[in-house]
Amino acid sequence: MFELNPRIQADTVPVTEWPLCRVLLMNDSNYPWLLLVPRRADVVEITDLAPEDQNALLGEITRASTALRRAVTPHRINIAALGNVVAQLHVHVIARNTDDAAWPKPVWGAVPAQPYTPEALERRLAELRAVLG
Amino acid sequence: MFELNPRIQADTVPVTEWPLCRVLLMNDSNYPWLLLVPRRADVVEITDLAPEDQNALLGEITRASTALRRAVTPHRINIAALGNVVAQLHVHVIARNTDDAAWPKPVWGAVPAQPYTPEALERRLAELRAVLG
Repeated sequence: MFELNPRIQADTVPVTEWPLCRVLLMNDSNYPWLLLVPRRADVVEITDLAPEDQNALLGEITRASTALRRAVTPHRINIAALGNVVAQLHVHVIARNTDDAAWPKPVWGAVPAQPYTPEALERRLAELRAVLG
Repeated sequence: MFELNPRIQADTVPVTEWPLCRVLLMNDSNYPWLLLVPRRADVVEITDLAPEDQNALLGEITRASTALRRAVTPHRINIAALGNVVAQLHVHVIARNTDDAAWPKPVWGAVPAQPYTPEALERRLAELRAVLG
């Protein structure tokens, strides 16, 4: 049975559910930063997913990228499945700008997370849900 | 016409050619670190690829992951398409171990690259070509 890793749960806010993945917003206002977590039990690497789920994941990654581009017109999208700290498979889809807090470095560990204020979180979620469905 | 970005060329050694991607080894002995570069002109984001190329890329990413697991039995595979410094689409597939130089941090910028000695490079290439085809 799928259960969201508690560390991921603590760091994120739920946005929507897609056929394969739970779509989450990282609670860090430095970057518009989505996490896609396949709702499958005991999956660590992409190769642990069944081939049809791998294809669905690719589709949902491109869907998230396209939606972020429409919502916030970033300079670049960073996509990554790392999982060194949290083993449960999760894919980062991050909108990057040349004036963001970490540019051009990757975001992980670059600067401390800046949690959204309640108002900013509400605005961000509304903006994202409009394009993420 | 496809042309490998000069910065990528300078930092890597060619390993093999797959149907979509040029497979390269990052010249950093800290980690077994592959780069996959689709041989397509003017591609920056995954969403710039035609859908059939996106599927081929996914297949080649899982192929590279599986091969790295067989060759070096890492603790974890990190997969990422960042491209903040080099725009040309390239996908990192990195074998990570809990005792490697950057663990558990991402590899980018963590420690200076350690170029392979000629002998170590020859060994690494032989080991990888045996599984990468």
